[in-house]
Amino acid sequence: MITKSTRFLIIGLGLIGGSYAMGLSKKGYHVDAIDINELSIDYAKEHEFIQNGSTFDIQLIKNADIIISALYPEAMIHWFSTYQKYFKKDVFLTDVSGVKCNIIDHIQLILRDDVEFCASHPMAGKEVSGVTYADNTIFKDANFIITPTKLNTNKAIETLKQFATILEFKNISILSCEEHDKMIGFLSQLTHAIAVSLMNTTDNHNLAKYTGDSFRDLTRIAKINENLWSELFFLNKDNLISEIDAFIYQIKKIKTMLETNNEDGLKELFIQSTIRRKRFD
Amino acid sequence: MITKSTRFLIIGLGLIGGSYAMGLSKKGYHVDAIDINELSIDYAKEHEFIQNGSTFDIQLIKNADIIISALYPEAMIHWFSTYQKYFKKDVFLTDVSGVKCNIIDHIQLILRDDVEFCASHPMAGKEVSGVTYADNTIFKDANFIITPTKLNTNKAIETLKQFATILEFKNISILSCEEHDKMIGFLSQLTHAIAVSLMNTTDNHNLAKYTGDSFRDLTRIAKINENLWSELFFLNKDNLISEIDAFIYQIKKIKTMLETNNEDGLKELFIQSTIRRKRFD
Repeated sequence: MITKSTRFLIIGLGLIGGSYAMGLSKKGYHVDAIDINELSIDYAKEHEFIQNGSTFDIQLIKNADIIISALYPEAMIHWFSTYQKYFKKDVFLTDVSGVKCNIIDHIQLILRDDVEFCASHPMAGKEVSGVTYADNTIFKDANFIITPTKLNTNKAIETLKQFATILEFKNISILSCEEHDKMIGFLSQLTHAIAVSLMNTTDNHNLAKYTGDSFRDLTRIAKINENLWSELFFLNKDNLISEIDAFIYQIKKIKTMLETNNEDGLKELFIQSTIRRKRFD
Repeated sequence: MITKSTRFLIIGLGLIGGSYAMGLSKKGYHVDAIDINELSIDYAKEHEFIQNGSTFDIQLIKNADIIISALYPEAMIHWFSTYQKYFKKDVFLTDVSGVKCNIIDHIQLILRDDVEFCASHPMAGKEVSGVTYADNTIFKDANFIITPTKLNTNKAIETLKQFATILEFKNISILSCEEHDKMIGFLSQLTHAIAVSLMNTTDNHNLAKYTGDSFRDLTRIAKINENLWSELFFLNKDNLISEIDAFIYQIKKIKTMLETNNEDGLKELFIQSTIRRKRFD
């Protein structure tokens, strides 16, 4: 379990890594960090998000009880693979990745037998990146999802629950990686695919002066980090493709209703979406 | 032009008709109204949105200098056609409809020669309806679009500009009905078709507990008035079908990039949408 003598090590001080560091430090926990960017380390030290930080310091790795990778998925796999030889015996590892099954499979394949990795996903963010935007209050209305496998212990799950409680997440859920990735394929990845595609449908930027809230709301997330999101899309490719197909099937229904002058059919689609959306309020 | 002796008559005290009445009355103008619902008339009188109102009063029609239809498009055509025999000579007519070409063509075909109809579109609203939600501040950040034809006079256009200025619209634009309907087909109707289709893609309401802001933003407008929006969709059917096709073409590009493992191609789509969305901020 997490105590005040637990030493956290955060790998990657971006928006999420920085916000984790900020939240844990505010609650009096010991946090160290490694990041390839010296400026991010300096910023985190100055703002007292971390106690020690470095672009490369083996001793920080050796001292850590809990290592949290806040790297992009592929960089995380590479980092664990390279530095696991320095991990303390019985170190506990988690991550922040937005997709799970492919990553867990890969990590459990390469990882030393005496260390435990249990994946988790803080469903929080902003349309900006970097430690200077770190803000631990983004977790207050957010979901924290734990995706254990059969190889994970109850102790690991309890540690993650305690971790999410310290950071004041609103809801803590446990899902299989398959359930998680299917849910994310629909709720997060399909919505980003739609926003990007809507934005790419026209290059007439004169339209900007006529846009109301609806269009702005639907395209807010069309400003997208292409490196992170292309990794996430490919890692969850099968789920996302099937969600795109299901969505195209639905929007083609609207088109068919218009082409066949089926007013009642169109109204039924509107009534269905209205009923379903109300359940989400 | 509009003066303090101008008598406005609003037909249909819904959200927009009610908000027009509220805004004009606050500025000291004379506003009367006709609505099929006695309760809406009573509410508008009690709240001093209107001076006189009725479910049916020929004299109100005979007295009006400017008649604003805030009815659904087809009901408006029916109302103008039925009651135009009572219109004062040289009465000026406008509307609030969300689509224009089909409506203008129809109205100009049936209307008396001595009255002028010039269409306009207040691009404002809420996801609720009815006079009890009337709120003239919804116009403060909104666009007011005038769609004159060759048959319209400069005087009519100037009257509408003055009208929009009284109601404190942020921008006043003049577009052909073709430009207007194409723009609306993309910015408003396609976005609603997408939101409805996304909401209809799954009936798993357990997902509600995991939804973040992105999904909520994209589906906010999936709660939709099926009678109004089916009219609007059918009246602008050709534009909307071509926008749906253009959008499907774009989202299929994302699918193709995934299927062909084209990471660079996917990133290019993300970069393009990011650049375009920034222009809208």
